[in-house]
Amino acid sequence: MPRWEPDARERFVTAALQLFSEQGYDNTTVVEIAQRAGLTKSTFHRHFPDKRDVLAAGQETLSRLLAEGIAAAPPQATPLSAVASGLERAAGAMTSFNRELAPRLHAVIATSAELQERDQLKQVGVAAAMADALRARGVPDLVAALGAEVGMLAFKEAFAAWVVPDNERGLGELSRAALDRLRASFAELG
Amino acid sequence: MPRWEPDARERFVTAALQLFSEQGYDNTTVVEIAQRAGLTKSTFHRHFPDKRDVLAAGQETLSRLLAEGIAAAPPQATPLSAVASGLERAAGAMTSFNRELAPRLHAVIATSAELQERDQLKQVGVAAAMADALRARGVPDLVAALGAEVGMLAFKEAFAAWVVPDNERGLGELSRAALDRLRASFAELG
Repeated sequence: MPRWEPDARERFVTAALQLFSEQGYDNTTVVEIAQRAGLTKSTFHRHFPDKRDVLAAGQETLSRLLAEGIAAAPPQATPLSAVASGLERAAGAMTSFNRELAPRLHAVIATSAELQERDQLKQVGVAAAMADALRARGVPDLVAALGAEVGMLAFKEAFAAWVVPDNERGLGELSRAALDRLRASFAELG
Repeated sequence: MPRWEPDARERFVTAALQLFSEQGYDNTTVVEIAQRAGLTKSTFHRHFPDKRDVLAAGQETLSRLLAEGIAAAPPQATPLSAVASGLERAAGAMTSFNRELAPRLHAVIATSAELQERDQLKQVGVAAAMADALRARGVPDLVAALGAEVGMLAFKEAFAAWVVPDNERGLGELSRAALDRLRASFAELG
């Protein structure tokens, strides 16, 4: 379970990214994605409702991992320590597949307003999952919402640093560092 | 300028909300909205690209007001004081039209996944506008992003409290109180 995605999903994602890069998002059909992946259109639709969902593929997995990590933190952990535990869990499940795909994914998303919206919605969904997991620990609503946004900013910061070509630091270490920088930012907000 | 929206937009929004409530979002056409508003379809399209955009109508105005208020804060103001200035500016421009529409708007959004997405994207856009305005003041990226999320949470909290039927407090006062609660939450995050 703590692995990222099984084989068929990875093949669809890789094929879709190649095609989106080569011929544009709008010009690519589900049939073409399936052909490139060496799979069928109906297999595609067992994994994704639509082609736009391919690029948000990791959202549910990421949300689940973060929520599990938050739930697994010791009962006396502060909200941000619980978030740190969630980030640790997510970082541990990310593979070189995620890292190698990231720059191409980013480039393709930048070409399409629809994909940018999808990507933003993905982030909203992941933050909501973290807030739910914090509330389930008894964290009050507003603190949970704030903690989830801090967690989301930490994840984005850490992930962006992780996928830089010459980076040698692990995603877990980068996540801890980003969370520490965000903690320090509270004082700067005034 | 510091008023919410001119007449035609308000009429389209009111008409759309009535129709969405009566017959559902999916079953309502732009032609019907225009008819109910006593205006034409082409006038509609001068104001909104599509019917789904009607309900996010206030986003650009809200973003502009928040950004103007953030920019207008004294140079020595802390990031959160600048955000408070933005919230003040936005609160001052909200009218009874916004307040009366809110419960119906909320009810209609709850009926449609597409509208919920639109509403989430609206919030992302507003937060991004606040972050841009903070960066323009020289606030570092991460602090600006965090400050914008705090501002967005404060606005949502305050707005939700403002539109409660028996509320008698002003939106500006509620915004200041929400921002104070969020400041206090930093310590609770741990």
